Amino acid sequence: MDLRRRGTNLPKMGDFNQSVILEAIRRSPGGLSRTELVGATGLSAQTVTNITRRLLDERLIEEAGRTIQGPGKPRTTLRLNAGSRLSIGVHLDPAMMTLVLLDLTGAVLERTRLRMHSDDARWIIAAMADSVEALIRRSHVDRDAITGIGVATPGPIDAAHGTVIDPPKLHSWHRVPLRHALEDAAGLHVRLEKDTTAAAVAELWTGEHPPDGSFLFVYLGIGIGAALVLDGAVVRGASRNAGEIGHIMVDPDGPECLCGRRGCVEVVCTPQAIVERAERAGVLSDDRVGSDAESVDARFTELCEQAAGGDSGARAVLETAVHHLSVLISDLTNMLDVDRVVLGGPFWSRLSEMCLALLPDLLRRSSATRAVRALPVAGAVVGDDVGAVGAGCVVLDEVLTPRAAALLLDS
Amino acid sequence: MDLRRRGTNLPKMGDFNQSVILEAIRRSPGGLSRTELVGATGLSAQTVTNITRRLLDERLIEEAGRTIQGPGKPRTTLRLNAGSRLSIGVHLDPAMMTLVLLDLTGAVLERTRLRMHSDDARWIIAAMADSVEALIRRSHVDRDAITGIGVATPGPIDAAHGTVIDPPKLHSWHRVPLRHALEDAAGLHVRLEKDTTAAAVAELWTGEHPPDGSFLFVYLGIGIGAALVLDGAVVRGASRNAGEIGHIMVDPDGPECLCGRRGCVEVVCTPQAIVERAERAGVLSDDRVGSDAESVDARFTELCEQAAGGDSGARAVLETAVHHLSVLISDLTNMLDVDRVVLGGPFWSRLSEMCLALLPDLLRRSSATRAVRALPVAGAVVGDDVGAVGAGCVVLDEVLTPRAAALLLDS
Repeated sequence: MDLRRRGTNLPKMGDFNQSVILEAIRRSPGGLSRTELVGATGLSAQTVTNITRRLLDERLIEEAGRTIQGPGKPRTTLRLNAGSRLSIGVHLDPAMMTLVLLDLTGAVLERTRLRMHSDDARWIIAAMADSVEALIRRSHVDRDAITGIGVATPGPIDAAHGTVIDPPKLHSWHRVPLRHALEDAAGLHVRLEKDTTAAAVAELWTGEHPPDGSFLFVYLGIGIGAALVLDGAVVRGASRNAGEIGHIMVDPDGPECLCGRRGCVEVVCTPQAIVERAERAGVLSDDRVGSDAESVDARFTELCEQAAGGDSGARAVLETAVHHLSVLISDLTNMLDVDRVVLGGPFWSRLSEMCLALLPDLLRRSSATRAVRALPVAGAVVGDDVGAVGAGCVVLDEVLTPRAAALLLDS
Repeated sequence: MDLRRRGTNLPKMGDFNQSVILEAIRRSPGGLSRTELVGATGLSAQTVTNITRRLLDERLIEEAGRTIQGPGKPRTTLRLNAGSRLSIGVHLDPAMMTLVLLDLTGAVLERTRLRMHSDDARWIIAAMADSVEALIRRSHVDRDAITGIGVATPGPIDAAHGTVIDPPKLHSWHRVPLRHALEDAAGLHVRLEKDTTAAAVAELWTGEHPPDGSFLFVYLGIGIGAALVLDGAVVRGASRNAGEIGHIMVDPDGPECLCGRRGCVEVVCTPQAIVERAERAGVLSDDRVGSDAESVDARFTELCEQAAGGDSGARAVLETAVHHLSVLISDLTNMLDVDRVVLGGPFWSRLSEMCLALLPDLLRRSSATRAVRALPVAGAVVGDDVGAVGAGCVVLDEVLTPRAAALLLDS
């Protein structure tokens, strides 16, 4: 166990400043001049000139016209060379596989959805590789520009081996070596990430969050997960499995859970749990065919539509769910004291109106810091595809995002 | 809202490398030679020579003899100049005020304890200032060497104004401007910190934890709190109030809490809650005089002694408490995926044997990552004074500890 910290030196500093400049340009859709880059990054004009020359040589950025501002010579605007590096993001969800092709700015160039006809791992991996090929062919991009595939999967994952352990909703999966299998089948570098972590990375890539801010990301999917963002970076955890919150107790009167506890998030707040509560209350008829992801999704939509149509029973069921979500969120925000809360994921849009109306006050009431500060609540900027987009951003992140930790000399 | 990240430059790099070298020397009680510093930090020999010369000039380090290792000229050992900078740490606990005087290595030179005869804020602050003076006088140190006073208090705090808001166990306290009042009374720079955060800083200062590791620190005091350490630094939170975990539900069959929930940590896991459970179960007689901190402390000791003496009823009460603690800890470790768990605080030593025997297995069973990794559990290295020592270390930290974030240029 090494108990000493490493220093830094000039080459490390140069790499870091290069990624700071790239990020500043990425975060300004209209581009930036060298003078503006000096102002934005605090770096000297000489450093900015040297680094932008290198980035132009590597085709990561390009010159995009000149503007005249007041006296003096016109300024050249620099912007990302969007097509110079691409990535593919895949979200493996129990109900649906989503694939996106992203350019270097994080913009979605192509998108594909695939229903999961089987939860057999071989079938899924073969279908994934086929869909990747079809996506590349259809988009007519240069295959060499694709830096890799990011795959977002339900946790837990074994990051060291690139395997998916035993995701609760993919019943036949057990220690599936997804990374190697997909690398073999697609011939591209693959990076595995938890779906909730990937979703938070997608949010960070929108550029709508301060680069050094913190937030708790709550992911509402078939399962419910979370991600923690501190100093503008996702906290991945020691084994890259942070964000497992399914067994935090939110309702002491809730149903028993397989884990041995009672009233966990898993049996109270998930879409399936909410649908079952509505069925028990007689708000939804109990003629549901299956408890597979697709049936639950359809029933959940039905419940939300009933509530939106003024059905007080449906409204009460959803309000109870939002109340239970607030217990979970306040447990985590009281512990973590983040700047704000961001909610997203495939079930978010159906709950957003009610959550944004009720959550702020519920959280204020149970906030340990209500005397000092407010806790803003917002919906994610990225929509339902947040998992797939995030998986693609994780790959681009390796090229683009500055990390202060990368300044330290290697051991 | 600035959405751009700052770069770094040579002066920032120099400051950072200086603190890296200071920390490396501090973490080696026997001192280090310049050659060893090159190996430990990864810095060049020239950089190490320049920085150590500056540190010698500032009297932060000193030469401590020469050693001959193999051929070549003898090496000069460098070590911290322990007396060159001092700090005072104060822990304001509802039952007891503890004061320590620390040298630059974090070693305790003097210690004082003071019973809290009143919870009146004026009385407490006057007593604190008097005790600081007495401590300085008794230790015969140079007052100019004292860089400041760190005060650890129960949260929540208003860090911007240096006030203690309304700590649950200090009934007459409400928005007490502790920082200003003590600065006025003692004539020294004062820094306020939450007790749990301070305790985690003390743990980090022992040098027994890897500089880039993560742990969850669980503080067992009159109240129960937590702190999160990531990349070798405490996560303080947006308002410096991270670690409020008192209302996480751990027992669905537990008593009602004033917060409106049931079975919270506050009414299940605190020493008072455990003592009350023992009284209800007839394990302790119900002739307790008061529910003040001192009576609870004495009853808790009695309960632990009964359990150690083989009383099965007392053992059962404590085992239940440890089980409930495991629910809290697994909620947080599943979310945060830290390297390990460290427990400490004034009640820790009485529970340590049972916790270390039971917790690892309880946590393994409810771990989301049990297929990938183990979650080690350890007791704090610092003893009951961890709050006061930590408060003093917080002040020394400002002088000594490298922060990668400090590399970034100011806005």
